[in-house]
Amino acid sequence: MTYRVHVRIVPRAGLLDPQGLAVEHALTALGFTEASGVRIGKAIELAVEAGSLDEARTRTRAMCDKLLANPVTEDYRVEVEAA
Amino acid sequence: MTYRVHVRIVPRAGLLDPQGLAVEHALTALGFTEASGVRIGKAIELAVEAGSLDEARTRTRAMCDKLLANPVTEDYRVEVEAA
Repeated sequence: MTYRVHVRIVPRAGLLDPQGLAVEHALTALGFTEASGVRIGKAIELAVEAGSLDEARTRTRAMCDKLLANPVTEDYRVEVEAA
Repeated sequence: MTYRVHVRIVPRAGLLDPQGLAVEHALTALGFTEASGVRIGKAIELAVEAGSLDEARTRTRAMCDKLLANPVTEDYRVEVEAA
């Protein structure tokens, strides 16, 4: 069965995120003064062929550990749904 | 009140995503042959000060339209939760 997987990878809390700071300044300059704590990372969407939802999640976490995320500087979150 | 907002911005369906293709090839080379249709975009997390959850959503969508996303080439999705 095919599962639709959403992965969100963001810089770890406490690590400097220059891109997020730049966007926050730009938002403030545009009048969006209510925005704060902007962090920018990667959003990855993919289809995963697996026998169960749990298997799709496990395989996607393996992909994150091996390729998609940098475990030293990034945290990731995996959401799986039936396609 | 402060709301925690997650924004996911990905290339529109049908548009070429070279980064996604490159990652898909790398996943296949690593043995993750069950992955397909990889699309890569931006994940943005921020805190938004607003009077209600709906207001936080509306303001964040305005941020996406004005700065965060390119409406010609990207789709975005906004998720709001109470912080």
